[in-house]
Amino acid sequence: ELEEFCVTLNPGRTAEFMEGLSNDEAWQVLQFAEADRRAEIFSYFEEDRQLELLELQSAKQVAKLVEEIPPDDRIDLIQQLGDERVAEIMPLLPIEDRRNIQRLGCYEDESAGGLMTTDVAMLTESLTVRQALDELAKQASDLETIYYLYVVDNDRSLRGIVSTRQLISSLNHPERTLGEMMESDVVVALVTEDQESVAEKVERYNLLAIPVVDSRHKLLGIITHDDVIDVLREEYTEDAQRIAAVAPLEENYLQIALFTLSWKRGLWLTILFFAAILTAVALEHYHQETEKYGWLVAFIPLIISAGGNSGSQSATLVITAMTSGQLALKDWRTVMRREVIVSLMLGGFLALIGFIVATLLAPSLYASLVIPLTLLAVIMVGCFFGALLPMMFQRLGLDPAMMSNPFVAGIVDILGIVIYINIARLMLG
Amino acid sequence: ELEEFCVTLNPGRTAEFMEGLSNDEAWQVLQFAEADRRAEIFSYFEEDRQLELLELQSAKQVAKLVEEIPPDDRIDLIQQLGDERVAEIMPLLPIEDRRNIQRLGCYEDESAGGLMTTDVAMLTESLTVRQALDELAKQASDLETIYYLYVVDNDRSLRGIVSTRQLISSLNHPERTLGEMMESDVVVALVTEDQESVAEKVERYNLLAIPVVDSRHKLLGIITHDDVIDVLREEYTEDAQRIAAVAPLEENYLQIALFTLSWKRGLWLTILFFAAILTAVALEHYHQETEKYGWLVAFIPLIISAGGNSGSQSATLVITAMTSGQLALKDWRTVMRREVIVSLMLGGFLALIGFIVATLLAPSLYASLVIPLTLLAVIMVGCFFGALLPMMFQRLGLDPAMMSNPFVAGIVDILGIVIYINIARLMLG
Ligand SMILES: [Mg+2]
Ligand SMILES: [Mg+2]
Ligand SMILES: [Mg+2]
Ligand SMILES: [Mg+2]
Ligand SMILES: [Mg+2]
Ligand SMILES: [Mg+2]
Ligand SMILES: [Mg+2]
Ligand SMILES: [Mg+2]
Ligand SMILES: [Mg+2]
Ligand SMILES: [Mg+2]
Ligand SMILES: [Mg+2]
Ligand SMILES: [Mg+2]
Ligand SMILES: [Mg+2]
Repeated sequence: ELEEFCVTLNPGRTAEFMEGLSNDEAWQVLQFAEADRRAEIFSYFEEDRQLELLELQSAKQVAKLVEEIPPDDRIDLIQQLGDERVAEIMPLLPIEDRRNIQRLGCYEDESAGGLMTTDVAMLTESLTVRQALDELAKQASDLETIYYLYVVDNDRSLRGIVSTRQLISSLNHPERTLGEMMESDVVVALVTEDQESVAEKVERYNLLAIPVVDSRHKLLGIITHDDVIDVLREEYTEDAQRIAAVAPLEENYLQIALFTLSWKRGLWLTILFFAAILTAVALEHYHQETEKYGWLVAFIPLIISAGGNSGSQSATLVITAMTSGQLALKDWRTVMRREVIVSLMLGGFLALIGFIVATLLAPSLYASLVIPLTLLAVIMVGCFFGALLPMMFQRLGLDPAMMSNPFVAGIVDILGIVIYINIARLMLG
Repeated sequence: ELEEFCVTLNPGRTAEFMEGLSNDEAWQVLQFAEADRRAEIFSYFEEDRQLELLELQSAKQVAKLVEEIPPDDRIDLIQQLGDERVAEIMPLLPIEDRRNIQRLGCYEDESAGGLMTTDVAMLTESLTVRQALDELAKQASDLETIYYLYVVDNDRSLRGIVSTRQLISSLNHPERTLGEMMESDVVVALVTEDQESVAEKVERYNLLAIPVVDSRHKLLGIITHDDVIDVLREEYTEDAQRIAAVAPLEENYLQIALFTLSWKRGLWLTILFFAAILTAVALEHYHQETEKYGWLVAFIPLIISAGGNSGSQSATLVITAMTSGQLALKDWRTVMRREVIVSLMLGGFLALIGFIVATLLAPSLYASLVIPLTLLAVIMVGCFFGALLPMMFQRLGLDPAMMSNPFVAGIVDILGIVIYINIARLMLG
């Protein structure tokens, strides 16, 4: 029944049911599955368990498993294993797998090459529908996906694609050739292309997989939909972390070394801290005013937080609109115009509430007008810079998400103080 | 050649090439494509153009196109069309399409039912491999995806799935039945399930499509990988917006009405503003101290921004770790322990810099110690609440992303002021 357990269940579910088992028990259960099923179940284990299993079992056993793991996952695993262990396993693998591992090891982790799998259905133009189907039947159990057939010439140069769906719906024209059916304008990824841009293509064109080619259009592999979803998750997380002024972790939050985590946070915190020192210097510069009108002091946090919060809103809205393709740089005038109008509405409303509160603390009705005027100006400045800075970063070829919210808030803090004291000086003399 | 243009090009690319055309020209070019290709190209047009085309062309022409659009996209379009227009088009559609539109119109937009398409390959257990393939060949051109075959009984209750890959690799056992091959433990989405949870299943189990069933396990439709990617994008944008204290826009940033945008931002800004008023009240309460030790005032923005920034970092890290499944509530002790250690490192370092700056502005070396002590305390408080609050929200069944960074900053602002003045009081008397 263990065998059946490994067959009728979805491999991901099987792996979940095995979570409670010890490493040895899990390995034992895996032996009941067929070789390719075994590798599939294995791929759903947590990375830590995968590495432990590969470290603990005999090299021969491990090699048998490693052979069955799809090339893209295999290289990721091997890059995490100890060098000695790899040296033990490699000689036990078939020569073509060894070459494959060496080749895939050369690509950058976050490039198309680092994501692709090399198990692809490559066929030639002259094959008929029937021949193609027979060929596919032979290869199907070895391939990760068979839902696109890639038509290549003798140099493995990519000529076109035929979907398995087209193939199956042409079964009543068994003599048609792939060359007649193929779509020749194929959306491809260059092997060195950044994963973010690869994922965007898959998203835009609704692909199941995207072929990866070199600069001479030779087909090297494909990237499948499930790995694209993981890239999108990685890129979202990276953006969110950058927006919060954390250098992208690249690792699991619970597992990253505390020193590394502190470094990735401390770097930006320190930069922001130096910006905040400027605010302190500015306030010190105005110490006569803050001493003369002591009641102004109470409103300092209120004013800078209103500016910072509205700036963060604008920055995040612009960043997410840019990354999801809703907003291009050419729209910058529209954005700025809309932000000015919105900031007038938001600023006007908060200024009104601020005015009411100010009348309770300020020495006179006239003096309390300083607060609403400052609030309106600071909120407008916040929205303005919040929207502008990410677009400027994009224009400079930098990641707009780097224009983090705390950075906008830092700029608004110092401008807010300068505006506040100068409005007070002007009005109160 | 226009006909060829519509065939050899990828439909997404074809649509891009047509971007420069007027609505009438675009419609004309579409007529050269075959009916299902036409609908596919049409689906890549921007939503505005789609709606314009459906409004402008004759009802008969439009009905012909609408019939070919996959059910999931069709219902989304129809829900955006004017009621009168819909009333014109509906009678021109075949009865089963009319029923389909009415049925799909009943589901919530962000539920599995609102995302699913009803064009599914449903087959019975007793079919052999060969029969199934023939059946598939017949249906292939009408179905959006044929890569999973859904095995159902007489009540359309879902019994299992067979992948087209399994089917093709079993071509040399043509007498095997689907019942023998099927995986019976199918990962499904309930028709009322929230889209976020559906997308998580597809991501976790690496599915090409997920079947949607009702409470009696009757198969209603499927959700395909491309629509899942769109959901992930939507959910990510929603999270990023919530983290920045914007109520999710649900619309394009450039197109949303300015009044709606102001409302979605103003709501949270106002709540945060009231929190900030408490900070002003606290500072006013301490006015004797801020007057007596005037040099303390210059450091107020520095201290609250250091606390706010480190709190935002913790909150964002915890939120993204939870949404990507790296962190579960049961890990809360680990998180808090790690955050305390990190905040000691970060706080210690910034306190050191703060101490150096403080010696320049404070009246004595002893007095300047107030600044580093406050910084350390405030950064620890920031990290503590930044990490704790999103987990508490999750625990309460609320969206952890609602525990927005400005909210954490607001709490840290007021606590920061209280800590600052009390440390000063204690040390300076
Ligand atoms: Mg890799
Ligand atoms: Mg796959
Ligand atoms: Mg898409
Ligand atoms: Mg893969
Ligand atoms: Mg990246
Ligand atoms: Mg990015
Ligand atoms: Mg990475
Ligand atoms: Mg819908
Ligand atoms: Mg996955
Ligand atoms: Mg769809
Ligand atoms: Mg949601
Ligand atoms: Mg969410
Ligand atoms: Mg929505």
